[in-house]
Amino acid sequence: MPGKFLFTNALGSFVFNEKHNAVDGLLFHSIEDYKEKSIYEDKLRQRHGNLEAPTGKNLYDILSFFKNKKYFSEFQKKNLELTKESLRNSVSSDLLIIQTINTIDEIDKTINALTKRLRDWYSLYNPEASNKIKDHQKFASLVSHNSKSQLLKEFSISEKDSMGADLKQTDVSAMILLASQINSFYGLKENYESYLKDLEKEVCPNLASVVGVNIAAKLIEHTGSLKRLSQLPASTLQILGAEKALFRHLRNKRNLPPKYGLLHEHQLIQKSKKDMHGKVARALADKASIAARVDYFQGKFIGEKLKKELTDKFKIQY
Amino acid sequence: MPGKFLFTNALGSFVFNEKHNAVDGLLFHSIEDYKEKSIYEDKLRQRHGNLEAPTGKNLYDILSFFKNKKYFSEFQKKNLELTKESLRNSVSSDLLIIQTINTIDEIDKTINALTKRLRDWYSLYNPEASNKIKDHQKFASLVSHNSKSQLLKEFSISEKDSMGADLKQTDVSAMILLASQINSFYGLKENYESYLKDLEKEVCPNLASVVGVNIAAKLIEHTGSLKRLSQLPASTLQILGAEKALFRHLRNKRNLPPKYGLLHEHQLIQKSKKDMHGKVARALADKASIAARVDYFQGKFIGEKLKKELTDKFKIQY
Repeated sequence: MPGKFLFTNALGSFVFNEKHNAVDGLLFHSIEDYKEKSIYEDKLRQRHGNLEAPTGKNLYDILSFFKNKKYFSEFQKKNLELTKESLRNSVSSDLLIIQTINTIDEIDKTINALTKRLRDWYSLYNPEASNKIKDHQKFASLVSHNSKSQLLKEFSISEKDSMGADLKQTDVSAMILLASQINSFYGLKENYESYLKDLEKEVCPNLASVVGVNIAAKLIEHTGSLKRLSQLPASTLQILGAEKALFRHLRNKRNLPPKYGLLHEHQLIQKSKKDMHGKVARALADKASIAARVDYFQGKFIGEKLKKELTDKFKIQY
Repeated sequence: MPGKFLFTNALGSFVFNEKHNAVDGLLFHSIEDYKEKSIYEDKLRQRHGNLEAPTGKNLYDILSFFKNKKYFSEFQKKNLELTKESLRNSVSSDLLIIQTINTIDEIDKTINALTKRLRDWYSLYNPEASNKIKDHQKFASLVSHNSKSQLLKEFSISEKDSMGADLKQTDVSAMILLASQINSFYGLKENYESYLKDLEKEVCPNLASVVGVNIAAKLIEHTGSLKRLSQLPASTLQILGAEKALFRHLRNKRNLPPKYGLLHEHQLIQKSKKDMHGKVARALADKASIAARVDYFQGKFIGEKLKKELTDKFKIQY
């Protein structure tokens, strides 16, 4: 004999008889009620004894019951609230990590482009400095804080011997303005890197400890979330970011498979010998994969331990 | 009967006899002397009467004379000084215009990229604002100066109804920091545009008056110098920047030839009806070409007059 059914949606909790007519119900007044629906369901169970969850044809009929137009506006309103709520809650800290690392990347691109502009421009005035100071950050900083003669003195060149033009103060000021802007961009980048570090302290302390703040963020960015990253096998994590090389290898076996993708920049790989790169990358990916899983399930901090195992194994500090 | 020859180089002014031996000479002590070489040549002419300029075989022999190693180091030093001097002098104001317009372009690109980043990021917190404020500059400015509830109030949305997440103050601060940086970039751009205006007031006041500060700079940037721009026929100036469309037309006659390139952004074209675009662009290019020539030869200011002829002809103000 078919029993009665218990059915809950955004409007409330309802009891249906075997003919699919509502015989009892408790309406929800806010989505807070919906979130605590089990309380309401329990109340109904106490009143009616054993209640089944509808399936198949029963479920279909019960759903049709709510097709009635009188429920529409209320239903839509409640569901919209629910959707908004779940959208709000979907913003997790790993999304903030992704935004931050993307912003840092964009800042890097900007700094490069603007410094190239500055070098081009400034070399009309002082080509020797533009030529001799290779480091972008140092270049922007020196240009914004030193006069032409001070800079030339550094390279033991007299201002008379410089191949640059003598320009008016306003022309030089325009260049120095760009240099200061580049300086402030370096400051901005530092700021975001420290913010990123703080975020990761909460979200993925273990992963950050094993692969470093920037690579940890890039791994999360690449997979879309810490959750997805933690579900990947270590061998996939190892070559994340080298998809192009991987598919080239799969298409035509002449190319070797990639040893690493995003991990490439890691100190442990950078500092090891070339014939060890594959081995190091595999070990690093193993530890990173463990770290990501512990982080996702919010386990204890074992980052330092994982890191020590790596540094001990390869005798490389990072 | 072959006479004597007068020959001058960086070392000095010399008189050679018909056997190509130096018989007299005045050495230069600095490149200042070289720049006033005609004084020295005149002195030699007074001593020796009529002197020929060597050509052909004579020139060849005289040049061989200086191949002697004893002249080498002195010759190289003097020539290096001369080269440096001419390099220094080659930095003309139109090069500064080119650097400035390139920097403005780069700033534009940066602003676009960073604002896209900001919109993406900020919409986790306040998607409604990100969606409703279309203008980039307004968006960055509003975000940096208003709280979420202030912004939502503008669109009559309560904070409870927003689909954005509630974030910690540090997370919001990181976004606002980017917004302020974008604001300061708009300030930087204004700064360079005013500097560009000042530069053009001296270099190409007429051209700037006819086509506007930015387009004038782009025309000079595109041709490499005001000199080259002034040598172009008006019909070439008209389609500068539309080379791709032009060659597509020449290759395959199905495509119409371009009506304009860099001039496209000009108010006169923007404000006129579509079927007049070609006519307007031709008239504009004519006046721009006249303006560029007057500017190159540093003639009088006729920019306002040229502009008035255009506005009168098409009854469009700009």
